[in-house]
Amino acid sequence: MMEVSEAVAAVLREASPFEPQAIPLMDALGLVLAEDVHADADSPPFDKSLVDGFAVRLADCVTPLPVIETVSAGQVPTRSLDHPAAIQIMTGAPLPVGAEAVVPVELTSEQTDANGIQQVSVPIKVASWKLSTNILRRGASTKRGDLVVAAGSELRPQELGALAEYGRSRVTVRRRPRVAVLATGDELVPVEQTPGPGQIRNSNETMLCAQLHRAGAEPVPLGIARDERAHLRERIDIGLQVDMLVLSGGVSMGEKDLVPAELASAGVRQVFHKANVKPGKPIWFGVLERAPNSRTLVFGLPGNPVSSLVCFELFVRPALRRMMGVFPAESVAVKARLTAPHATKGDRPTYQPARLEWRADGPIVTAIPWVGSSDLRATVAANSMALFPVGDQTYAAGNVVDVIAW
Amino acid sequence: MMEVSEAVAAVLREASPFEPQAIPLMDALGLVLAEDVHADADSPPFDKSLVDGFAVRLADCVTPLPVIETVSAGQVPTRSLDHPAAIQIMTGAPLPVGAEAVVPVELTSEQTDANGIQQVSVPIKVASWKLSTNILRRGASTKRGDLVVAAGSELRPQELGALAEYGRSRVTVRRRPRVAVLATGDELVPVEQTPGPGQIRNSNETMLCAQLHRAGAEPVPLGIARDERAHLRERIDIGLQVDMLVLSGGVSMGEKDLVPAELASAGVRQVFHKANVKPGKPIWFGVLERAPNSRTLVFGLPGNPVSSLVCFELFVRPALRRMMGVFPAESVAVKARLTAPHATKGDRPTYQPARLEWRADGPIVTAIPWVGSSDLRATVAANSMALFPVGDQTYAAGNVVDVIAW
Repeated sequence: MMEVSEAVAAVLREASPFEPQAIPLMDALGLVLAEDVHADADSPPFDKSLVDGFAVRLADCVTPLPVIETVSAGQVPTRSLDHPAAIQIMTGAPLPVGAEAVVPVELTSEQTDANGIQQVSVPIKVASWKLSTNILRRGASTKRGDLVVAAGSELRPQELGALAEYGRSRVTVRRRPRVAVLATGDELVPVEQTPGPGQIRNSNETMLCAQLHRAGAEPVPLGIARDERAHLRERIDIGLQVDMLVLSGGVSMGEKDLVPAELASAGVRQVFHKANVKPGKPIWFGVLERAPNSRTLVFGLPGNPVSSLVCFELFVRPALRRMMGVFPAESVAVKARLTAPHATKGDRPTYQPARLEWRADGPIVTAIPWVGSSDLRATVAANSMALFPVGDQTYAAGNVVDVIAW
Repeated sequence: MMEVSEAVAAVLREASPFEPQAIPLMDALGLVLAEDVHADADSPPFDKSLVDGFAVRLADCVTPLPVIETVSAGQVPTRSLDHPAAIQIMTGAPLPVGAEAVVPVELTSEQTDANGIQQVSVPIKVASWKLSTNILRRGASTKRGDLVVAAGSELRPQELGALAEYGRSRVTVRRRPRVAVLATGDELVPVEQTPGPGQIRNSNETMLCAQLHRAGAEPVPLGIARDERAHLRERIDIGLQVDMLVLSGGVSMGEKDLVPAELASAGVRQVFHKANVKPGKPIWFGVLERAPNSRTLVFGLPGNPVSSLVCFELFVRPALRRMMGVFPAESVAVKARLTAPHATKGDRPTYQPARLEWRADGPIVTAIPWVGSSDLRATVAANSMALFPVGDQTYAAGNVVDVIAW
């Protein structure tokens, strides 16, 4: 039986980054950029005013100055400051040739002289200002050709803004994986139905689809497969048409656990079955080669909802990250201090629902009591899973354990 | 001029939580539950087996036992254990009356006796097992009527799973705000266009729409409004039909800064104009009463992209949280240690792009150098903003400052 780290490595050996493709910038939020993007122009592209005011030469600021032009943002100055004068200018507008500073309008007063010419008076102190006060020089933030967003970056709002500034209305990314979700088991009924004797509702589909959404993938819910070969196989064949098929249930030791056999008969090559983990031991993983460079990864998650939740985070998430180009693909554990004593027993490493909190002096974690892998309510109080190694152990408050945030 | 805390308080006085409404569970990811949801049944709803194996009475486990029935998940046992016998049972299936434990199939061996009756042998040690080994008793995780997810909870995958388990195919939430985004200014051209002299691309629309997505809102991009009254007013009137209108540009002291006047003429009541903040001083906020209990909040953000980004996080985000029922609505600052010395100067509290990192001994923060509020590239290296109070100050590495994560 594989250890978790071996199983994750086996998953990642089979998961390849998607081929980069160009998509509209507006659709790229949360995806990973697959190209270095360089500035197509200086930023700002011209010397520009940082305030609404008057562009001047500093030495001229000792007498009222005639206002010879007004330049709004989007306009271009037609006059230059080659003699004592001022040009009224708005925030973001290009500076006239010769301008040494911009005096904010709040500091000035205007009047009309005897010839009907508008004059502006500026404080005498302006004459001693530093050159370029209230001016942003062309290229001050970025020079044409500078790297703006590097390949491998997650596209957040600010990256999208920066890419827009440099005209990238389309960007090259690795696309969202399409992932079919298929819950199996005769005991399952749809959420809107009242379970009969021996039945429970299909909570896994809703939960797994939401986990996929959060991970940046596109879920394709396929409903419930009954424990009947032909029906299960038909649903599996539909699920095998997309990038990944995530099943829940049907992978343990029971007589109705048909999933591994039906996947095999559909041509899916088993990579592993079972991992040394609690919850989630029966996890199954395999691969279907659909065509050269086109494969479907298949996960058979245990049917209990906490097992599904945990196995998704442990095994499915890294595969999705790899396909989308997220680095690192592996989940990163945080070292956190236990807030309370905790006793473990058992023959497998346990990933226990836990609440991780960030404090000024470092992260702390509280294990959430649970009655086992069907106890979805315990996960409602959790935001992470704490790893307790195999064996009967007592941990004191303050002991440090590994925690993976969900 | 208002301080940031006063301005946020003024925004939150005008923003009301939406009326709760029922929506499909599958659409509720990331929203806030507006009702307490209680269990409609015990969980598990029946005594169930945790393993694939044989249900037995402990005292009977001293001789091979006849297998009198097989129960799969979804089936109901028809026999009871009122005499020495075993009932084969699958994970998740309901237990027969009288069962005291389930012996995993891996620990057993089966044979057929002289009469052709299937017999199972179990290890003798089973006789000394604790009652209920490998059994999850009805209601062990949740009793009918227990609170499953509380009003005010953010709906994450595990909450959706728990709500599905209890049959909530529709849930009562506060809906996503619809937010119009309107960039203003004659200097702006669309992203796919090459700017002419004095022009720049409209990066704010892409960035603000992405920020809205991340905040759980539905952006309605309205393109670019020219600095021309009739055209601006027409765009504003469209934007005023949804829950919120976010404009960028046109709110400072320039002659073409038409936004406040056009908003006023459209009936929008100004709440404040300007806040003591860098970047973002010219920020404008107001409210239109469209009908009783139906209002549009209007934010005029400064046009420089970093100002827009920062003002969105400082002022718009809290309003969205309030509308969606997120508590607290205010942004929560983290205390983090500076990784390097930092000098500030200026007449306003500065929210500087920064990189916040969580370390084992607490959060650390690095201020990102920037050339001002148009320097969007600086924000690409950032994931937060660090607050430096007003005044000329030198901070040493290790000094603690407030940081708001984006």
